[in-house]
Amino acid sequence: MNIAAAQSGGPTSAINASLAGIFSEAKMTEGIDRIYGSLNGIEGIINGNLIDINDFIKTNYDLELMKLTPSTVLGSCRYKLPPVEENKEVYEKILSCFKKHDIGIFFYIGGNDSMDTVSKLSEYFRENNIDIKVIGIPKTIDNDLKCTDHTPGFGSAAKYLAVTLQEITRDSSVYNLPSVTVVEIMGRDAGWLTASSCVLRANGEESPHLIYLPEASFTDEKFLNDVRSELDKNNTVIVAVSEGIKSDNGSYAAEAFQSGADDAFGHKYLSGIGKYLETLIRNEIGCKVRSIELNVMQRCASHMVSKTDVDESFRIGSEGVKAAVAGNTGKMMAFRRMKGLPYFCSVTAVDVKDVANKEKKFPSEWINSEGNNVTDEAIDYFLPLIQGEVSIPMQNGMPVHIKL
Amino acid sequence: MNIAAAQSGGPTSAINASLAGIFSEAKMTEGIDRIYGSLNGIEGIINGNLIDINDFIKTNYDLELMKLTPSTVLGSCRYKLPPVEENKEVYEKILSCFKKHDIGIFFYIGGNDSMDTVSKLSEYFRENNIDIKVIGIPKTIDNDLKCTDHTPGFGSAAKYLAVTLQEITRDSSVYNLPSVTVVEIMGRDAGWLTASSCVLRANGEESPHLIYLPEASFTDEKFLNDVRSELDKNNTVIVAVSEGIKSDNGSYAAEAFQSGADDAFGHKYLSGIGKYLETLIRNEIGCKVRSIELNVMQRCASHMVSKTDVDESFRIGSEGVKAAVAGNTGKMMAFRRMKGLPYFCSVTAVDVKDVANKEKKFPSEWINSEGNNVTDEAIDYFLPLIQGEVSIPMQNGMPVHIKL
Repeated sequence: MNIAAAQSGGPTSAINASLAGIFSEAKMTEGIDRIYGSLNGIEGIINGNLIDINDFIKTNYDLELMKLTPSTVLGSCRYKLPPVEENKEVYEKILSCFKKHDIGIFFYIGGNDSMDTVSKLSEYFRENNIDIKVIGIPKTIDNDLKCTDHTPGFGSAAKYLAVTLQEITRDSSVYNLPSVTVVEIMGRDAGWLTASSCVLRANGEESPHLIYLPEASFTDEKFLNDVRSELDKNNTVIVAVSEGIKSDNGSYAAEAFQSGADDAFGHKYLSGIGKYLETLIRNEIGCKVRSIELNVMQRCASHMVSKTDVDESFRIGSEGVKAAVAGNTGKMMAFRRMKGLPYFCSVTAVDVKDVANKEKKFPSEWINSEGNNVTDEAIDYFLPLIQGEVSIPMQNGMPVHIKL
Repeated sequence: MNIAAAQSGGPTSAINASLAGIFSEAKMTEGIDRIYGSLNGIEGIINGNLIDINDFIKTNYDLELMKLTPSTVLGSCRYKLPPVEENKEVYEKILSCFKKHDIGIFFYIGGNDSMDTVSKLSEYFRENNIDIKVIGIPKTIDNDLKCTDHTPGFGSAAKYLAVTLQEITRDSSVYNLPSVTVVEIMGRDAGWLTASSCVLRANGEESPHLIYLPEASFTDEKFLNDVRSELDKNNTVIVAVSEGIKSDNGSYAAEAFQSGADDAFGHKYLSGIGKYLETLIRNEIGCKVRSIELNVMQRCASHMVSKTDVDESFRIGSEGVKAAVAGNTGKMMAFRRMKGLPYFCSVTAVDVKDVANKEKKFPSEWINSEGNNVTDEAIDYFLPLIQGEVSIPMQNGMPVHIKL
């Protein structure tokens, strides 16, 4: 029997570590012969674009490079599998590819959209009495999947954010005049990553002075008051803001801005919330202000991965192989965290239906009453996830990446 | 006799390494007692805000932290010393501070504005037969100072850029559709940092496919043709663009955009060239496009410093002490590079007048004839400057920074 793996959705710095975990465990599992990689997610299965990962991973060094290369080495897709009633053909195409290559287990590494694919496919095989197992391996920097303590890829994003925000804090305080720096952080609907910036407090930093999440209400007026109040206490104010914060009426604050601005071409200006708040502060408070969008570096800065995250991402992949071989299907592998300290997570299999198309929000009880910061419980939750550094293989002063 | 040091202009990841070099050499120099730090550049001298650096650097670990803390530990300023004819009083204030603290040597770590201060101050002391030496220590991520092969701080900025651009390149190529990513890089008038992105070629990357510098002419039409032509050859096109590129008539291309766009408040929209080119591509070519502004991380990402840069920045500080003790004044310390390989730089003292208020442009002979990339000679120049990694002291998963 052979197996196949694919990657889907937005990249992370640790998604290839999960593939490396699947590959390593499968290599030593009796009964598994070939380990296929499907190019560009499930589309590779549908279109018959498979590679034999064995052809690319020949040495320990190759495997190490795969673990530490950012982005999806197999490519990705945004394809959402339609219900079988709507398009039976695509399911037959997938089945035909699996049969042709004698694939008995399929691993899909992705977020909640990908878990929907895992759910539908496993259901289809089950209903048609086809013995092909489908297992989901979680992955997202958003940390918004249900039934798991946290998601692979999140810890590395949070570590990059913490390290960068601390450096921005140093940079922002060199001149002897009041200034505000607004840092825009990824997370359209869930504020986990933005909230994780609170870990700087563990290093004695006061930054970020203000933290705004999509889970808390936001108004320009309250925001300006918050900033004014912080400027009374500090010369340098750092604001961490989620790209997805919402104003009172539920619309994205950034969209309110977009609808008001035309660019040189007469189109609505597609700017982020950071630029919006920068302009707001400049006009209403008038102090020195700057906005910084951390952009895709949050999900691909593998030169600053969390060792905890990379190790766990590898492990959850390898545990997925064990679970499938033990007969599981329609499951997502998940982390269960031991209560208290020291930090320890075990890997378990959960029903993928409880995860697919659902979203785990940042807990409201960890948001302060003013809605502009998070509580110390959040630090205890986040801090273990960013621990440890990995020695990155370098060449010519730059990391070495593997390309399949 | 005591000495004083100050830092000025924009921060870098290596500016504190130069201060550490001055401190270390001065500590072991007979005849030097106290080592003062002036807070917020020359303003600290004018206002009498001095600290004794000995009070903060007690251990080897403290010194290591200072070397690797980004931004200016002494704070910075943008103050430009007026000519003595215009404001004699400020010179007398400075002299009075130096006399009060028995300061016989003053080190100013900064860019070409700071070298102007070094020039004026040393001239004033010389003309008035006052035995106070003034020495400039170069620093800028722009690499635009004359009389030196390169500037301290530049190598680390270039390394951060190279590492990040390589990661962005991975991230940009996950989906199976044509896309353009425009990366906006610091450098208002000189394109050194943007040009340094060519080092990715040494790692076998084709990215960046296009490189635009302020030193080459730029038109929207030619740019769109360049992008179209690259899209014919590649699915993923990465463009490195200096924030300061100029259009045909010499104005900043970005300003052309700013003048056309109003924000929600009716103000001119202060956006960068990256956003401008993103919008241009979206409207004129219509493919998937994204722009990324690397922002202040280019000058403060000390978690990814170049060991070569940090070591050299330390050394140029310590050589400055030796030069001053040997009787030099009105000099800037500079690097002279040995021709060919292996890479080696010696430190020399040059007349600060040849540096002050001048600017070294990226050589036109290293720009290709199309004006959209650089030649292999540039790779040979840049590559040695980004070599080597430094082990960063960590705590709670984040770097440890020192605060004076």
